[in-house]
Amino acid sequence: MARPDPWRLLPASYPHHAAVQTRFQDLDVLGHINNVAWAALFETGRVKFNHAIGLAGRREHRWLVANVEINYLAEGHFPDDVEVATGIGDIGMRSWRILSAAFQNGRALATCDVTIVMSSETGAKALPEDFRTDLGGWMVSGIG
Amino acid sequence: MARPDPWRLLPASYPHHAAVQTRFQDLDVLGHINNVAWAALFETGRVKFNHAIGLAGRREHRWLVANVEINYLAEGHFPDDVEVATGIGDIGMRSWRILSAAFQNGRALATCDVTIVMSSETGAKALPEDFRTDLGGWMVSGIG
Amino acid sequence: MARPDPWRLLPASYPHHAAVQTRFQDLDVLGHINNVAWAALFETGRVKFNHAIGLAGRREHRWLVANVEINYLAEGHFPDDVEVATGIGDIGMRSWRILSAAFQNGRALATCDVTIVMSSETGAKALPEDFRTDLGGWMVSGIG
Amino acid sequence: MARPDPWRLLPASYPHHAAVQTRFQDLDVLGHINNVAWAALFETGRVKFNHAIGLAGRREHRWLVANVEINYLAEGHFPDDVEVATGIGDIGMRSWRILSAAFQNGRALATCDVTIVMSSETGAKALPEDFRTDLGGWMVSGIG
Repeated sequence: MARPDPWRLLPASYPHHAAVQTRFQDLDVLGHINNVAWAALFETGRVKFNHAIGLAGRREHRWLVANVEINYLAEGHFPDDVEVATGIGDIGMRSWRILSAAFQNGRALATCDVTIVMSSETGAKALPEDFRTDLGGWMVSGIG
Repeated sequence: MARPDPWRLLPASYPHHAAVQTRFQDLDVLGHINNVAWAALFETGRVKFNHAIGLAGRREHRWLVANVEINYLAEGHFPDDVEVATGIGDIGMRSWRILSAAFQNGRALATCDVTIVMSSETGAKALPEDFRTDLGGWMVSGIG
Repeated sequence: MARPDPWRLLPASYPHHAAVQTRFQDLDVLGHINNVAWAALFETGRVKFNHAIGLAGRREHRWLVANVEINYLAEGHFPDDVEVATGIGDIGMRSWRILSAAFQNGRALATCDVTIVMSSETGAKALPEDFRTDLGGWMVSGIG
Repeated sequence: MARPDPWRLLPASYPHHAAVQTRFQDLDVLGHINNVAWAALFETGRVKFNHAIGLAGRREHRWLVANVEINYLAEGHFPDDVEVATGIGDIGMRSWRILSAAFQNGRALATCDVTIVMSSETGAKALPEDFRTDLGGWMVSGIG
């Protein structure tokens, strides 16, 4: 749980950006965006990312969210939009990682790392080669 | 994102247990408990834990959720309850970790690790000694 | 939007009762259960009611929520449970009404009236006779 | 629960319009926007309306949601935005009504009527005159 690397907090490190609206419902008793609401905001950004890269329609494959880690850096507010920046972090044999960061009025508020596992009736399965190619076109650019 | 250690999936490793109801709202388009709903279920278990260990009333201190990591192991269903088992993982100078696991009908479905940071107007601050003592009474028992 | 009739605020007027847990997520910035959260609490009570009366498994029929009206009478709190009391209000040719009231620590906090319409590919359709009989066994008792 | 009057389903009947994003979280097991999610979508549109008409900052007054009624007309989808159209329906001695309708791709999907009551420590209280004047500038136009 170290503080994220500096490149994680730069919008330009990510190939995909989506403006995601906040809701009054996202606020907790302290008037800030609740940590569970952050999970929903990142999920919405991630689904839009999946649409953008063409995964949403490929229902011949099934994948599962295996792990979600969110780092909370500063408090978010309503009603301003959140910019969710997203890209692929790494591509494994049977899984891939989606890395996101969320910004509000230009300030980095949270990061989110999600591991997705390709699955079949009998458990995890290898990533198809064309799938791997498509994901490879949307890598984050800050790692090296 | 390695698979959790075996002790993480045993209810007896955790000193606190809460039955948390699932809701119809928790289901996603596949009919399973959605990964964002899991964040809310764990949050509810964690708040009940904070009440049980006496933190909820100590409003002279302020703390923040700094990091949440959820491992999804198997799919959850409605309307059965989820048992959320919780304990303290470790206690640092200015932060502590709360470890949880969720079970449904005896099966481990997810784990959740949360880092909490003690804060003040001027940033993170040291954990008060009595606070540290109280947390120390609720450690998970499987680590060693 | 008149204040509900007195019988609506008596648990004994309803044939079905379910304890529904509140969540930390249900609280708004004022520290009360938010009005949207009430919709989710009532939905959970209603789905449990549908299970109890045997509707949940009858997937040869399809029905839709056509109208939901919630009256807010007093503020709800976390972490106490809410008791959702539910029954059938009336049964029409193609629809029925489910009436609920929610109580916390014995105090009536809200009522909820839901109209359900039986539907088919071609629009609303008549309620099957056995369906009507089943619903008729779970009427609220305060109307007459 | 009659079908709404035709003017309720025309965007032009309402003085305020807000584009509200849908979320993946809003979907239920049938793949449609869940009826509880509709309550959150309308709430977000209503809060934006309150900001637009200058109510959001007037914290010298306190008001409560007393009643919410939602009519569901057709199914909503993700990821398209919802247009929430809002205006004042009528202004009483101690309360007012906010009327909304939601459209997706130009199609009316739901209406929402909310009654707000001005409150004080000792219960409902009269609407201040300037408050009444402000609300009067944002009436819906279809009633007559």
